[in-house]
Amino acid sequence: MDDVRSLASLTTWKTAVVDVLFGGAKGGVRCDPKDLTEAELERITRKFVQALKDCVGPDKDIPGPEISAGPKVMSWWFDEYSKYKGFSPACVTGKPMTLHGSYGREYATGRGVVLATRELLRNEHMGKIAGKTFVIQGFGNVGGWAAELLELYGGKVIPVSDRTGAIYNPEGLDIRSLKRHLKAQPPFGGHLSSFPGGERLPLEELLSLSCDVLIPAAIPDVITEEVAATLDCKYVVEAANGPTTPEGDKVLRERGIGVLPDVYANGGGVIVSFFEWVQNQQTFRWEEEEVNRRLDRKMSDAFERIWDVHTTQKLPLRTAAYVLALRSVTQATMIRGFD
Amino acid sequence: MDDVRSLASLTTWKTAVVDVLFGGAKGGVRCDPKDLTEAELERITRKFVQALKDCVGPDKDIPGPEISAGPKVMSWWFDEYSKYKGFSPACVTGKPMTLHGSYGREYATGRGVVLATRELLRNEHMGKIAGKTFVIQGFGNVGGWAAELLELYGGKVIPVSDRTGAIYNPEGLDIRSLKRHLKAQPPFGGHLSSFPGGERLPLEELLSLSCDVLIPAAIPDVITEEVAATLDCKYVVEAANGPTTPEGDKVLRERGIGVLPDVYANGGGVIVSFFEWVQNQQTFRWEEEEVNRRLDRKMSDAFERIWDVHTTQKLPLRTAAYVLALRSVTQATMIRGFD
Amino acid sequence: MDDVRSLASLTTWKTAVVDVLFGGAKGGVRCDPKDLTEAELERITRKFVQALKDCVGPDKDIPGPEISAGPKVMSWWFDEYSKYKGFSPACVTGKPMTLHGSYGREYATGRGVVLATRELLRNEHMGKIAGKTFVIQGFGNVGGWAAELLELYGGKVIPVSDRTGAIYNPEGLDIRSLKRHLKAQPPFGGHLSSFPGGERLPLEELLSLSCDVLIPAAIPDVITEEVAATLDCKYVVEAANGPTTPEGDKVLRERGIGVLPDVYANGGGVIVSFFEWVQNQQTFRWEEEEVNRRLDRKMSDAFERIWDVHTTQKLPLRTAAYVLALRSVTQATMIRGFD
Amino acid sequence: MDDVRSLASLTTWKTAVVDVLFGGAKGGVRCDPKDLTEAELERITRKFVQALKDCVGPDKDIPGPEISAGPKVMSWWFDEYSKYKGFSPACVTGKPMTLHGSYGREYATGRGVVLATRELLRNEHMGKIAGKTFVIQGFGNVGGWAAELLELYGGKVIPVSDRTGAIYNPEGLDIRSLKRHLKAQPPFGGHLSSFPGGERLPLEELLSLSCDVLIPAAIPDVITEEVAATLDCKYVVEAANGPTTPEGDKVLRERGIGVLPDVYANGGGVIVSFFEWVQNQQTFRWEEEEVNRRLDRKMSDAFERIWDVHTTQKLPLRTAAYVLALRSVTQATMIRGFD
Amino acid sequence: MDDVRSLASLTTWKTAVVDVLFGGAKGGVRCDPKDLTEAELERITRKFVQALKDCVGPDKDIPGPEISAGPKVMSWWFDEYSKYKGFSPACVTGKPMTLHGSYGREYATGRGVVLATRELLRNEHMGKIAGKTFVIQGFGNVGGWAAELLELYGGKVIPVSDRTGAIYNPEGLDIRSLKRHLKAQPPFGGHLSSFPGGERLPLEELLSLSCDVLIPAAIPDVITEEVAATLDCKYVVEAANGPTTPEGDKVLRERGIGVLPDVYANGGGVIVSFFEWVQNQQTFRWEEEEVNRRLDRKMSDAFERIWDVHTTQKLPLRTAAYVLALRSVTQATMIRGFD
Amino acid sequence: MDDVRSLASLTTWKTAVVDVLFGGAKGGVRCDPKDLTEAELERITRKFVQALKDCVGPDKDIPGPEISAGPKVMSWWFDEYSKYKGFSPACVTGKPMTLHGSYGREYATGRGVVLATRELLRNEHMGKIAGKTFVIQGFGNVGGWAAELLELYGGKVIPVSDRTGAIYNPEGLDIRSLKRHLKAQPPFGGHLSSFPGGERLPLEELLSLSCDVLIPAAIPDVITEEVAATLDCKYVVEAANGPTTPEGDKVLRERGIGVLPDVYANGGGVIVSFFEWVQNQQTFRWEEEEVNRRLDRKMSDAFERIWDVHTTQKLPLRTAAYVLALRSVTQATMIRGFD
Repeated sequence: MDDVRSLASLTTWKTAVVDVLFGGAKGGVRCDPKDLTEAELERITRKFVQALKDCVGPDKDIPGPEISAGPKVMSWWFDEYSKYKGFSPACVTGKPMTLHGSYGREYATGRGVVLATRELLRNEHMGKIAGKTFVIQGFGNVGGWAAELLELYGGKVIPVSDRTGAIYNPEGLDIRSLKRHLKAQPPFGGHLSSFPGGERLPLEELLSLSCDVLIPAAIPDVITEEVAATLDCKYVVEAANGPTTPEGDKVLRERGIGVLPDVYANGGGVIVSFFEWVQNQQTFRWEEEEVNRRLDRKMSDAFERIWDVHTTQKLPLRTAAYVLALRSVTQATMIRGFD
Repeated sequence: MDDVRSLASLTTWKTAVVDVLFGGAKGGVRCDPKDLTEAELERITRKFVQALKDCVGPDKDIPGPEISAGPKVMSWWFDEYSKYKGFSPACVTGKPMTLHGSYGREYATGRGVVLATRELLRNEHMGKIAGKTFVIQGFGNVGGWAAELLELYGGKVIPVSDRTGAIYNPEGLDIRSLKRHLKAQPPFGGHLSSFPGGERLPLEELLSLSCDVLIPAAIPDVITEEVAATLDCKYVVEAANGPTTPEGDKVLRERGIGVLPDVYANGGGVIVSFFEWVQNQQTFRWEEEEVNRRLDRKMSDAFERIWDVHTTQKLPLRTAAYVLALRSVTQATMIRGFD
Repeated sequence: MDDVRSLASLTTWKTAVVDVLFGGAKGGVRCDPKDLTEAELERITRKFVQALKDCVGPDKDIPGPEISAGPKVMSWWFDEYSKYKGFSPACVTGKPMTLHGSYGREYATGRGVVLATRELLRNEHMGKIAGKTFVIQGFGNVGGWAAELLELYGGKVIPVSDRTGAIYNPEGLDIRSLKRHLKAQPPFGGHLSSFPGGERLPLEELLSLSCDVLIPAAIPDVITEEVAATLDCKYVVEAANGPTTPEGDKVLRERGIGVLPDVYANGGGVIVSFFEWVQNQQTFRWEEEEVNRRLDRKMSDAFERIWDVHTTQKLPLRTAAYVLALRSVTQATMIRGFD
Repeated sequence: MDDVRSLASLTTWKTAVVDVLFGGAKGGVRCDPKDLTEAELERITRKFVQALKDCVGPDKDIPGPEISAGPKVMSWWFDEYSKYKGFSPACVTGKPMTLHGSYGREYATGRGVVLATRELLRNEHMGKIAGKTFVIQGFGNVGGWAAELLELYGGKVIPVSDRTGAIYNPEGLDIRSLKRHLKAQPPFGGHLSSFPGGERLPLEELLSLSCDVLIPAAIPDVITEEVAATLDCKYVVEAANGPTTPEGDKVLRERGIGVLPDVYANGGGVIVSFFEWVQNQQTFRWEEEEVNRRLDRKMSDAFERIWDVHTTQKLPLRTAAYVLALRSVTQATMIRGFD
Repeated sequence: MDDVRSLASLTTWKTAVVDVLFGGAKGGVRCDPKDLTEAELERITRKFVQALKDCVGPDKDIPGPEISAGPKVMSWWFDEYSKYKGFSPACVTGKPMTLHGSYGREYATGRGVVLATRELLRNEHMGKIAGKTFVIQGFGNVGGWAAELLELYGGKVIPVSDRTGAIYNPEGLDIRSLKRHLKAQPPFGGHLSSFPGGERLPLEELLSLSCDVLIPAAIPDVITEEVAATLDCKYVVEAANGPTTPEGDKVLRERGIGVLPDVYANGGGVIVSFFEWVQNQQTFRWEEEEVNRRLDRKMSDAFERIWDVHTTQKLPLRTAAYVLALRSVTQATMIRGFD
Repeated sequence: MDDVRSLASLTTWKTAVVDVLFGGAKGGVRCDPKDLTEAELERITRKFVQALKDCVGPDKDIPGPEISAGPKVMSWWFDEYSKYKGFSPACVTGKPMTLHGSYGREYATGRGVVLATRELLRNEHMGKIAGKTFVIQGFGNVGGWAAELLELYGGKVIPVSDRTGAIYNPEGLDIRSLKRHLKAQPPFGGHLSSFPGGERLPLEELLSLSCDVLIPAAIPDVITEEVAATLDCKYVVEAANGPTTPEGDKVLRERGIGVLPDVYANGGGVIVSFFEWVQNQQTFRWEEEEVNRRLDRKMSDAFERIWDVHTTQKLPLRTAAYVLALRSVTQATMIRGFD
């Protein structure tokens, strides 16, 4: 329950920071999907919708995907909800493309991370992504797409890692080849460590590699006080939720390492969830370029607002982001009146 | 009733092929509008809406125009429906421009036929429309607009025909002059056969004229087994519904004449009906260029998907189109679940 | 009550002229906001919504801002209405930016006046705004923004006035400096008359100054029969509502001074109110450039339609605008049918 | 308008006095039904419903019959309302029996007057109606039914009157014969004055006839200060609305003549309107006896409450009735709370 | 389909004759319940409701039980409908007692037949049921309950029959014993023919037995022209639907045998269906005595109305019933108006 | 929370036992009303309704009064709910008489206890209440009314008690005098112990007094194992919720003392809550006699069903009641089907 509350809270501030018309409530069914057949999962989802149907909806609360609630669950939700309320694709996001989903949702968080990094470098007068070096922890949906897009923009992703190990190439890994390798079958593919385009790196050396930007994209609490002291990067861009502990954060501040906080940096996912909802409300799908263009604008505008607080009020970026979020929520509340 | 069902079925597959959010149900009142005064027609339409009003609607079933149900009938439908459900322009398509209709709807099917032809020629490595020769059967709303647009793109429309006869000019007819001629009063205008810019052609010679593309745009079942054997074209683009019989189709396949099937080729009409509905849902009219640009995109994307099945699975274009439609409907059904 | 009716009527024709999906009903609570605390004003607004809630709404009647009902009142309206009907930002326009308002609403009327002027000059073969001279009466929201935009387009605003006096510079006032001056505190700023970039002008000489375009942007009935005889301009563009009396209008016609009537010229405000509503319906905010681009298109298209009636039917622009409005309302009424 | 307001106000207090779940709003269309064909009246009624349909309804405001809005108008109202909101007989009262009307509505007001009179006599220790003498002014729906029921209970109705004259029989008129006479054709029937069972009486002598109870059942303001001084009865029971002027009322009080006020005495009509609504809500018609039994109970209970105030607080019956009504409305308002 | 239409038509007139607030539409799913498992039948019923849910409902169309749609089907209907529209027991009748059904529904048709017979005898000055002799064809739900109630009222049911044979006792069968016998197991029970309290009677002799009242309660078209000539009864009371052919009817009229028609005589079933609906609307169950008392009143009142037409217009009872029904439907239609 | 759940559960079974159309969900706001001003309590109540309004309602969940949520709270609930959903008195029970409450609700639980006792005595062949002796623990709303009604029926209430002590009169206390005494001011009234019509009794002797029926009407868990062994009564009628512990219950069974369980015995309150809801649904108030008559019927019928299980299945009355409740809930669930 505490996890759910803390996640709900993070999402509330995140949507305020990136300025999308969503809030941050969370809810769920207490069960382990791995113990259920697909048919059971479907029935549970449908009963859940039957019970909640008058409390959620396109203009009330719009559930989005979570780790154990992917496109299939979202499709059932949409189908069941629509039985009661009529055709309502906007009642849920994270739907598959063939059922009113949005282009660009799959890689939205990864793309957002890269756009955030681009803005950071530009505003820090560091220039473009091209030629910079990046260390990425995690090669799942977020880290994998971030790596691919950084490469596209000319950045050098020198190591990437997953739970099984890390791979390293000081000239920049060939990310697309690496992905093809991972999709292939063993013995010629499948594991990070067997990729021929780089050398193995002990996992514990990953975070302290020298680079321009370190992107933790895996799990929470990896940059502790101790780890923070060993980093050799100019900036940390938080692609994961909560990768830096409060103590680690303090060390980074003292060492002058800039941190682009999760509440902004990984907001690309919720932005495109919002776009999916907008498209459903408009009953018209945006072309892929349009989704990406608007995501870019959202990320840039939010950065500009944070940067403005950061520079005018001399606050760290994380604090600046929360100041911004709080101000926005307060203002909307005040202006609606007190009755 | 069988006609209604078969039309409903064709529409179902057509909307799947061109990927618009519509289905294919059909319904109507059994009467002959020619026997009715306009006031009677209005009252019948309104009573029909009163009876159906809870079963149709912007999010359920959206009627569109048919031969005997033009803009006026659609306006009454909209007006009556809105009395009960509140302002609902999206409850029906084919409305006049002054009452929430869309730009570009009038010539949408004809324009779609030309866009389909353009894609076919390009993918067959035949180059552009400019300089190609076209035979068009039928000079109504579909054939007339197709001819005008082909001319605009530099194509040579060498004969056109209507029920009264055909007119022929091997250098390409001047379509705009011809249309002005038809709108003028006799004795200097009014009939195809009196157009000075071409010579009369016996109707039975029309289909077997030598050309690059034959476009039947009039009535069903004109390319029978016998006719198919006499064609002298490289491609047939079906602007009419069902112009080729199954036997005729077989002959064309054997003779190596490519057929772009009706289920795709004349889909422009339903696409812009869909656009009209989208604009009504968005309460905002698209500019004419925007309608045309999006129609182009829809027709091109659908062609690409058909062509992909056609080339990778070695299937005729018609079969490819149906494979595509069936796959799309199946996928959506599967993913919604089984309850 | 008569004022309310006459305003409702003007709005009805205005929305028809600029072709937006709004009508012209008006209503209100009989009270003087100046006698009320903010808390009282809020409670009155909310009770008013409670009483009206089933008769207004996004698809019925959409209130907009008036002089004594600004963004705060609109926010309370939205908040109270949404309690009953669910989240409904489209139920009211003129909302603040932080609560579903639109970019560009603040300066919409002023911008519309300038666009209207641009079209007038172009169609009268007078060329562009650049280099022309303008006299503006009134420097409030409408006149102030019109002046600033005219300057931006290269026009020379030679005098402006407010209730306290007028200021004059034959080379064109520096409008941005003037605005900064007005915002500053006395003794170095605050009053029009103390602006160092021009000289004082007696208010009674303002309207008869020689110029290309006179823009009354303050109060009604200023161009009476007598005043009309003294004007020394080529065109009058009515930024205020009803600045010309019927008698004054007659004199201007006789003297050959063209009048761009209020029913068109100051329509920019209601156009962007409409855009705000559209954005709320679409649940997606347009970027500022998009709002301005669409406002430009709306104003240009409306001008073209008026000009067409003006030239083909040899009618004054004011009459032409009303002919257009009446035709549009009639046509829509006719086509909806008579039941 | 003033008339409408004063009627609305009277109805508000009347429903409070007789304790039915109705209020007292009034509204209408400004027209003279006599100038309209029935078809026009029907169309006006239906358009009126279309405009009001969201503001009235079984749980909001329930129109009832008025002089120029009888059962037919009520039927159209019901029919039109039901088109929009579904089958809703409870949306209006005063419907004909064949269309969800109630038994006993026709004579409800007259019956209520008699029940009120019965209670008054009993509480004044005057005994039963049988043997008492009654003077009735007016022989329309209210006076006619009151007379018939008084006769049934053994009372002597000694004169009755209508606009054309009065008829008198000191032994009590035979009311049923009189009614048959009025329904018959001249020369043997049709006028009050030609009834053989009594003698003609000058209209001006009617009110001052000696009797137990005077029942004004015609028009307002007949018991003025002057008339009041001439009355020769023990009680006045106000069957009409407002038959006594304030000055007349004062004289009666001084002379010790008891007055049963209209706000209670003629409440039978609105009570059975309420019963009709209840039956419609319950989708089940009460038998005639049940309607009459419940009307009796309502009238008796209300009398008891008024009498209680009258005796414990030493107030005239009229004042007592208003005290009662005001208390009831206040109490309900207080208990609902202040938000 | 024709059967459905003819049944719908009969029901329309029946509800008009017995004056209940129902109509006569019919619909269904084309399937044979005997081929389906109960689970399949449940799913079909639920899907049927999902498809029809916006076209039926407590205030629109209320399905009732039919031969192959008993209490279980009705329960599923109620359950499924309530999922979509909220708790709605009034959406269907024929529900079991434990799920909002009505007391007295099971024997309602049989009871109605007996009440009808009672009224007939009384009005024909034949006295009471006690002592009269009755022949009943059919011993199912209708015939069985009619027999039991006739016995209760002192009538002598001399033979009853079912598909397997008839049993006869000139002193009147002991119906309760007979029912116990039928419920018992063979060899001591189970068949009509083995009942010890009477003697076997050939089926073909049944109808022509001498008696006061013949009650066909089995299948249609049994009293043909030939059979009609052989009857030896004073009255026929049609408990079955359509037991008399038009030719048979003519013979009976000529022979002076009175016929109480099905459209009235077996209306008890639909009356209690209506009562069930009323109770559901009132959310309160009537006690058994109340149901029976009201059924009695409905049957008596309807008889009185038919008898009135019968005697004043000299029409056979069947014609009189249809005149009554037609008049009632016409009147309601007229009074609702013509728009 | 556990208390809330256990209370919800008890209510579920209680409504099943007494056969009313209610369930047993419970909910609330965690606060202490004693710490709040009335205005605060009102605002909290209204906000609670705003949050719950789509999940409760006349056809979903109908809150009823609880100890800290009396008529005022219920009035606010009704008022607030009706703002959103229209006039809805049936949305809550326990409303005051002046705001759609029911006659007889105040003393419903006490009356139910007495009716239950009457049935018990009759079925146990003990005769009537008259002449029997009763010990009542608790003299609040339940115990006080039970005492008064028992006295009315001729029973002798020999001691009653409250938190301050007990009073005793072997000939039966004069309950009405006692109540007057309690309402009077000290020194001549106000406390139980100062009542002159009986003598003081130590509280600990109360339960073991010799009597026919012991009625615990105060708090839970008073009849423990030890106390049970000391009782000197023939029957225990549980007017309080849960006065007997499971161990105490066992002792009573062994000692042959009959127990009429709370789940039935104090069901009068929820029955009249249900009646209030029914009256609101029917928009018509029942007269006081009718409420009491129906309460009597409900209590008698439920007793009969419990007694039937008790005697045919040889189960204690408590077990019999639960068997009955469980069967009823199960049956309804089964018959609704499994989808």
